[in-house]
Amino acid sequence: MTGPTDPDDNPALDMASDNAAPSRRGFLRDGAALIGGAMLAGGLKGEASAAGADNLPPNIPEWMKAPGDPMGSQPYGTPSPFENGVVKNISKNLKQYISASGRSPLGDLDGIITPNGLFYERHHGGVPSIDPEQHRLMLHGLVDRPLIFTMEDIRRFPQESRIHFIECSGNPAYTKPYGKTASDVAGLLSCAEWTGVSLKLVLQEAGLRPEAKWIVAEGADAAALTRSIPIEKCLDDAMLVYSQNGERLRPQQGYPLRLLLPGFEGNMNVKWLRRLKAVTEPVYSREETSKYTDLMPDGTAREFTFYMEAKSIITRPSGGQKLKQQGFHEITGLAWSGHGKIKRVDVSVDDGNSWQQARLQEPVLTRALTRFRLPWRWDGQPAVIQSRAIDETDYVQPTFAELLAARGENSFYHNNAVQPWRIDAQGQVTNANA
Amino acid sequence: MTGPTDPDDNPALDMASDNAAPSRRGFLRDGAALIGGAMLAGGLKGEASAAGADNLPPNIPEWMKAPGDPMGSQPYGTPSPFENGVVKNISKNLKQYISASGRSPLGDLDGIITPNGLFYERHHGGVPSIDPEQHRLMLHGLVDRPLIFTMEDIRRFPQESRIHFIECSGNPAYTKPYGKTASDVAGLLSCAEWTGVSLKLVLQEAGLRPEAKWIVAEGADAAALTRSIPIEKCLDDAMLVYSQNGERLRPQQGYPLRLLLPGFEGNMNVKWLRRLKAVTEPVYSREETSKYTDLMPDGTAREFTFYMEAKSIITRPSGGQKLKQQGFHEITGLAWSGHGKIKRVDVSVDDGNSWQQARLQEPVLTRALTRFRLPWRWDGQPAVIQSRAIDETDYVQPTFAELLAARGENSFYHNNAVQPWRIDAQGQVTNANA
Repeated sequence: MTGPTDPDDNPALDMASDNAAPSRRGFLRDGAALIGGAMLAGGLKGEASAAGADNLPPNIPEWMKAPGDPMGSQPYGTPSPFENGVVKNISKNLKQYISASGRSPLGDLDGIITPNGLFYERHHGGVPSIDPEQHRLMLHGLVDRPLIFTMEDIRRFPQESRIHFIECSGNPAYTKPYGKTASDVAGLLSCAEWTGVSLKLVLQEAGLRPEAKWIVAEGADAAALTRSIPIEKCLDDAMLVYSQNGERLRPQQGYPLRLLLPGFEGNMNVKWLRRLKAVTEPVYSREETSKYTDLMPDGTAREFTFYMEAKSIITRPSGGQKLKQQGFHEITGLAWSGHGKIKRVDVSVDDGNSWQQARLQEPVLTRALTRFRLPWRWDGQPAVIQSRAIDETDYVQPTFAELLAARGENSFYHNNAVQPWRIDAQGQVTNANA
Repeated sequence: MTGPTDPDDNPALDMASDNAAPSRRGFLRDGAALIGGAMLAGGLKGEASAAGADNLPPNIPEWMKAPGDPMGSQPYGTPSPFENGVVKNISKNLKQYISASGRSPLGDLDGIITPNGLFYERHHGGVPSIDPEQHRLMLHGLVDRPLIFTMEDIRRFPQESRIHFIECSGNPAYTKPYGKTASDVAGLLSCAEWTGVSLKLVLQEAGLRPEAKWIVAEGADAAALTRSIPIEKCLDDAMLVYSQNGERLRPQQGYPLRLLLPGFEGNMNVKWLRRLKAVTEPVYSREETSKYTDLMPDGTAREFTFYMEAKSIITRPSGGQKLKQQGFHEITGLAWSGHGKIKRVDVSVDDGNSWQQARLQEPVLTRALTRFRLPWRWDGQPAVIQSRAIDETDYVQPTFAELLAARGENSFYHNNAVQPWRIDAQGQVTNANA
């Protein structure tokens, strides 16, 4: 394995080499067609037999010949019917009322914002339907002034808005067979702009006592999901959030109020939040004992594994997709770290023998998804592609072999291993771990 | 009118002064209750008669007593039924098939991202329903290689993702009576993360000739909306976009392909894009002659007014809302500029006599909405509040009187005047211009 090359100064990034990724500068300088598209003069004839040719100027497609849908048919808009296959990827193996999950379709998404309709969901007792007028948050325990808040009270506090990811710590569970698509293996991951109030401010309002070392958060779902949060996090960047990508939280994301703990495992971001209790010790709830802990090789339990460590995945090309032709393809994916900003993403197109540094889309935000991209020229030969993320702490995303060596065979959560995709000679992309 | 004060070092920001805005540092130091919420010990009894009290611990609300909605009932999620009043604000005065608009409900939104379901829309021939397999983009005129692109071709180009606002230049039309709400007066404005390909790259692919000075863009709607774009913009930050907040464009935003010209007036961001023609002169289409031009006092037409100049609006409190109690309220709103980043937002709470500098939510992005916030203590007396934006070019958002003096009575578009809101002694907020 060699070190990554700089994306601009890599001699391997040469258009003359079929298997190398052309640099953007390279292909612009070259002047040759990158993608193509049919040539209008020579190509139109050939194109004429293909679908869509009748829609070229000077011809008028059917949808220009009469007025389109009127305003008001969608006061709240929905996607095009042609996109009705882009939905959450819903687990068939979990009981739908007791413990269920729906994954974001990562292979179909661009950028870093997950639209609210496709945000991943995971719940343990179904999605409660809560009237925000009836909802209350109780803040008690080791505080000078125990308080009860209506949603209107919460919304009167000074606001903050921040873009953060949330990821389930079982994304994917590493002892089970791997899935087929990017959504199967990493779709319990989404990112949104959240708006709410700093938890620190609310705790100060109640007069948090110095002996309080943990905050116990309880959700108003049928599972009464409960987690203990270390006070340091509560006084750092934790928030009580009520809006997501501008509008109020969706029911599946905790409407009307959820806890947001940027970078912490998903279930700790307690949804439908009804209670915060300041205490001296964690409560060892179900979700921090029988669930969300890992049996280590020495027989101990790895518990309170709060942080989601650095991870990345190539989303295009990814499992289930197909490269329809040789030549230029951009490799793109997502990287993230619960510990802060992504510093670098390396991509290998030769089964891990060499690595190239991908470009990161600006702005790179802390504890948010970061989109990476690398130009690549596919020569039509089988290939294995993969990415590895490095965060601002210089932590490097491990291989699955490294995770196994450290945690053994009985671990379940916090699988942040490198995900390789195999491309066969027909361009079909499959999970190289399967 | 005095200059703005620094948000941290303003002696007027003193909790002792009823009418002044308390600084965040100030109220934290103070230790007194900022918002309140009912006190648990003393307050619970009073609270017990109010709605919601039965839902407080140790009581269990109804929605915790049985499993909630199962997974899979919403493969593509929708908002809570309790939010069904938060929809686009649809103009009653425009013919629904010919020329219609739906405004984002700015007073109900937080942060800077507009969710796709509430993104504003404006169209001149209805919303076409386009099969992306059938859609083609033709690029011709002064290029060496005229090209025809399928959507698959377009998606093979290297991607970029950027967060930008789009605003209609008739937001609001300034000769008409003003509306009642923030949505009425500024709701033809939204902001999203867009993904697509650099227009410069596509033009280079076709071999753009040096004599090309304009690109004519044509939409595939029944209005065949057509605009001429100066080549400088096309070679700067213009994009062909197909995704919006992660998923494919909504039909109302140009599915499957639109032009994005960051900071240019909305209609130039041609939706349902089917043709780009490189030419030497603008075409003087309907949308750049009889529409989207302004009659000046000297009888000339102000035409090709591309840039949306710096503007801001307070969205909370704003028209139609009500302050239910004296004391702390955060003033928050949006600022934006077609010329780049917002540098500063000033807020006045005394009818323009004095101004205080608001905090800007980071990251402040170029040609994107910027959320501003100012803490305020309302003393229960009538007040007029307003904001003014200053962008990185040091342009200052004008008053309506200044706009009138410069452009006269016959102007219609590009009203970026300061928007004042009146708060009466009962806390009711109305448009101070009405």
